[in-house]
Amino acid sequence: MPKIVNHDQRRELLAEAAWRVIRREGLEGVSVRRVAEEAGMSLGSLRHYFVTQSELLAFSMQMVSDRVNQRIMKLAFNGNPRHDIEIVIRELMPLDEERRAEAEVWLAFSVRAQVDAALKELSQEVHGSLYDGFRKMIDMLVKMKLTPEDIDAEQETKRLHALVDGLVVHCVLNPERLDSDEIWRIVMYHLDRIIVNR
Amino acid sequence: MPKIVNHDQRRELLAEAAWRVIRREGLEGVSVRRVAEEAGMSLGSLRHYFVTQSELLAFSMQMVSDRVNQRIMKLAFNGNPRHDIEIVIRELMPLDEERRAEAEVWLAFSVRAQVDAALKELSQEVHGSLYDGFRKMIDMLVKMKLTPEDIDAEQETKRLHALVDGLVVHCVLNPERLDSDEIWRIVMYHLDRIIVNR
Repeated sequence: MPKIVNHDQRRELLAEAAWRVIRREGLEGVSVRRVAEEAGMSLGSLRHYFVTQSELLAFSMQMVSDRVNQRIMKLAFNGNPRHDIEIVIRELMPLDEERRAEAEVWLAFSVRAQVDAALKELSQEVHGSLYDGFRKMIDMLVKMKLTPEDIDAEQETKRLHALVDGLVVHCVLNPERLDSDEIWRIVMYHLDRIIVNR
Repeated sequence: MPKIVNHDQRRELLAEAAWRVIRREGLEGVSVRRVAEEAGMSLGSLRHYFVTQSELLAFSMQMVSDRVNQRIMKLAFNGNPRHDIEIVIRELMPLDEERRAEAEVWLAFSVRAQVDAALKELSQEVHGSLYDGFRKMIDMLVKMKLTPEDIDAEQETKRLHALVDGLVVHCVLNPERLDSDEIWRIVMYHLDRIIVNR
């Protein structure tokens, strides 16, 4: 029996091919022709799923965010705030090959978003939801009186958000200097300082 | 009298033209032809200063780092550790138009460095000297007993380095969410927490 691959699955296969080209050759290497080749598909078939290059890029960027969200939805929260915060942050960082691929292509897309309006919108939207997620963590800690007394929830949220993204960028750009164990240790070090028993 | 522009100045003018093209069109828009056009120079004249595109890119990336270093060399340190740390960090962040241009093109070059060996070397070198600079700040604070007792100098350095770069990236990619005043407030908030009188 022939393998049945539906429309959505085919789009994901093409987006994954785009990710591979981006990781190997940079985003400037991505053309619909190049991605079709990488996916072992004809250009005509690719056009059936993505009419323009811009559409392919936007879908491929969106897929990074969707994959992370899908994993977060499946997490086993246990109500211990430190545990629950840790397992969410782990999904955002390049701690294994899958998350490393996501972080690399996300960074490339974010930079391209500076000159591409469709990608820019998605980049801003994801920045906003990440801020909201970090804000919920901090608010929960404040509510449970698990933070130092003098913290400012908004500044603390922006500090955690920037620290996590800064570590992601360092690990993507300079893995020889900062590997995945190391960036995770620094997150732990930071959480040790914002989650206290008082 | 004709204006005398020497060889080095001409190279800097071309690199500045490359920066403008990168900021407007992304790094994928940069070709020697495009940069010559932007600088109002013929392609033949440009070739007199840069034989290959790769050479032009490497010089343009190096110039970001050189400009930052030149400003840091001229800073008026006064021996007050908090003041001296602040004025160095200010030079690394997009707090005005000049530093914003540097941060934008540096980020684009860093991502391209993933697939360009010459840029990669420079990216690693600069990451290393920034780490060393942040390490000196932390070591000075420890020596002067101005840090909380339980700090780990290496983790603290990597945390500060990642926080600063994370804020730079946020401000470059999402200036609508995090403007220059805001990123500076978060640096101050962090310094308030690692520099204490005990």
